[in-house]
Amino acid sequence: MDINNQIYKVLENIKKKSPLVHHITNYVTVNDCANIVLAIGGSPVMADDKNEVEEMVSIASVLVLNIGTLNTRTIESFILAGKKANELNIPVILDPVGIGATSLRNKAVERILKEVKLSVLRGNMSEIKNIYGIETETKGVDSIDDSLDGGKEIAINLGKRLNCIVAITGAVDIISDGKKVYSINNGHKMLSSITGTGCMSSSLIGACCGAEENSLYGAITGIMIMGISGEKAQQHLKHNEGLGSFRVYLIDAVSNFNEDDIKEMGKVYEIK
Amino acid sequence: MDINNQIYKVLENIKKKSPLVHHITNYVTVNDCANIVLAIGGSPVMADDKNEVEEMVSIASVLVLNIGTLNTRTIESFILAGKKANELNIPVILDPVGIGATSLRNKAVERILKEVKLSVLRGNMSEIKNIYGIETETKGVDSIDDSLDGGKEIAINLGKRLNCIVAITGAVDIISDGKKVYSINNGHKMLSSITGTGCMSSSLIGACCGAEENSLYGAITGIMIMGISGEKAQQHLKHNEGLGSFRVYLIDAVSNFNEDDIKEMGKVYEIK
Amino acid sequence: MDINNQIYKVLENIKKKSPLVHHITNYVTVNDCANIVLAIGGSPVMADDKNEVEEMVSIASVLVLNIGTLNTRTIESFILAGKKANELNIPVILDPVGIGATSLRNKAVERILKEVKLSVLRGNMSEIKNIYGIETETKGVDSIDDSLDGGKEIAINLGKRLNCIVAITGAVDIISDGKKVYSINNGHKMLSSITGTGCMSSSLIGACCGAEENSLYGAITGIMIMGISGEKAQQHLKHNEGLGSFRVYLIDAVSNFNEDDIKEMGKVYEIK
Repeated sequence: MDINNQIYKVLENIKKKSPLVHHITNYVTVNDCANIVLAIGGSPVMADDKNEVEEMVSIASVLVLNIGTLNTRTIESFILAGKKANELNIPVILDPVGIGATSLRNKAVERILKEVKLSVLRGNMSEIKNIYGIETETKGVDSIDDSLDGGKEIAINLGKRLNCIVAITGAVDIISDGKKVYSINNGHKMLSSITGTGCMSSSLIGACCGAEENSLYGAITGIMIMGISGEKAQQHLKHNEGLGSFRVYLIDAVSNFNEDDIKEMGKVYEIK
Repeated sequence: MDINNQIYKVLENIKKKSPLVHHITNYVTVNDCANIVLAIGGSPVMADDKNEVEEMVSIASVLVLNIGTLNTRTIESFILAGKKANELNIPVILDPVGIGATSLRNKAVERILKEVKLSVLRGNMSEIKNIYGIETETKGVDSIDDSLDGGKEIAINLGKRLNCIVAITGAVDIISDGKKVYSINNGHKMLSSITGTGCMSSSLIGACCGAEENSLYGAITGIMIMGISGEKAQQHLKHNEGLGSFRVYLIDAVSNFNEDDIKEMGKVYEIK
Repeated sequence: MDINNQIYKVLENIKKKSPLVHHITNYVTVNDCANIVLAIGGSPVMADDKNEVEEMVSIASVLVLNIGTLNTRTIESFILAGKKANELNIPVILDPVGIGATSLRNKAVERILKEVKLSVLRGNMSEIKNIYGIETETKGVDSIDDSLDGGKEIAINLGKRLNCIVAITGAVDIISDGKKVYSINNGHKMLSSITGTGCMSSSLIGACCGAEENSLYGAITGIMIMGISGEKAQQHLKHNEGLGSFRVYLIDAVSNFNEDDIKEMGKVYEIK
């Protein structure tokens, strides 16, 4: 089956299964994450107390760990929920927000990678390079490294090392399962001017992987939904409108997303 | 006075008194809850530290407890604030988000019901059935049980048992004070496709009960504001718009809400 | 240089430097704060764990402390981050949300003022009077004291005492560095009907002070951006629209904000 057909299947399965996406996530973009999961047809739930995360993840289809506003209390919950998910064969998505900025974040991610088997790791180039082991400058939670140099190699090698899908998002997105590598040329630069588009991409990947066994297709689909919806939101902008309207149109586009969007606007390629 | 006139009085009193609605609530939908309370004319305040909730609730008109992202720290605050509210005769609204999903939630609600006298309990059918004692499947925080079978009996009996208003919201809403039962046929299914409409309903009930001594009328008014505003938001949608715009129009409708909306669109009936 | 030219310079510097604005803030309006910082050209980061705030603030251009939903855990973080910012000569903005409502808030602000040197203190008249030492009634987090009586004297004297910029926002805004006093007559009353406009003003001041050494000009610019954008958002409202649309247009206006807005609409005056 060609990659577009795989994506159609993921979209169809989300509507059919309405996967429950358990998030342990930050309080900055949590509302956006909940709304985007609903918009694509999934069902979000957020729960972070260590006394309930194992039970909650047990009824979920997928677990999304996002360290955006981590603290010592939630780090324990990441580990407990992640291990339980592994035990039950529930896919785990990790968004290592702002890794490199503080050692608390570095250590938390190190511990997660050691104790939890991931299905998908999604970050910007700064974050992924940091995990890969390349010294990189960081500036809070936003990537300042948009070069694609070495992106392909990093994605393949890190995918192989972690035995999971690695998705590097940016002007061009690179996704690899450690063997194949895909690039996605969708998206619009306005997406980096509203908060939460990275987090929402991870949540969309969560919704997709909660409905699709093949995490490579899940990751590609989630990222394409965000990229294409960003383009449509920008095209929808009228005179005098700006980032407030853009954000509304982004959710509109996700909630109306369908096969035709992929057919007409999708730009995903395997890089040989 | 007929029920519509009671509702007009509640709406008028909110504008007149601008009740302070103290929330101890989740971090997913908290911003929506604050905005909807402001939109209807109330004044929201969120405070959850156990060292300040008693003082905060003492200056409030009403207390809303929402367990959406509860944790061991906030459970203590629920109890302290709830008891103080009882002591001062300030109405307490409980939204038992996701009860049934984890034992942490079950125990927290059990403890609240034991130690705090409620004015209104609002939940979806899954949540209310769980409290009533009927085994029900749960799926995260969204109801998967929309049957009205037994809804009337459950609302009456639970209202009697807890000596408070019980409001079951769904495709049709059922509200009882343990004696009378009302049904509301407003709302639109899009309301279940954005996050926080349940939480916002509870916050609206809070604003209403902070301005109206009769909690039955408060609960009915809060739920009708949400239902009718949902219908108006959907009618406002233009070609190509979706859930992002719907959410904006929902707040628009609440902020413009008035007697005429009830007169023209209200569908509340006493069930005999 | 006249004050307008100073403001143009601040606007230009934000775009040029894209200052990293580290927030320790509340979970009610945090998403709005992140989006407004991005909209004006800054880069927001939110981090509140005591084990990372010192490192995070070290890479930041400015620190914004907002006590809206403070708790015992975050109070420690306020102090640690504030002291580190002082050490590194990074400006600190304080938003004493709801001070006066509870002694936890009073004590937290007292401690911050004692241990941390502020660049800007921004609050509504109730909050600032409380810090100044005038008994004032409080109602949750919203000001019920909009009188300007004594505003000029309070701003000058408190600015002198704390050796920082004091900004009192309300129907008319008053800003002083302890010597000069400015008033700003921009804004619209709808701004008080959506949550977070106070917090967002503090975040905008943060973005401005992260790009401009003179905190007086930073504070004035931040407040004018909010005031003028509020006016433009209100003018943009169409028939049947309300607070949901207003909020979207507010972010639109901030993201399109430029020198011409100041030229055409700015109403800032030195009070002699």
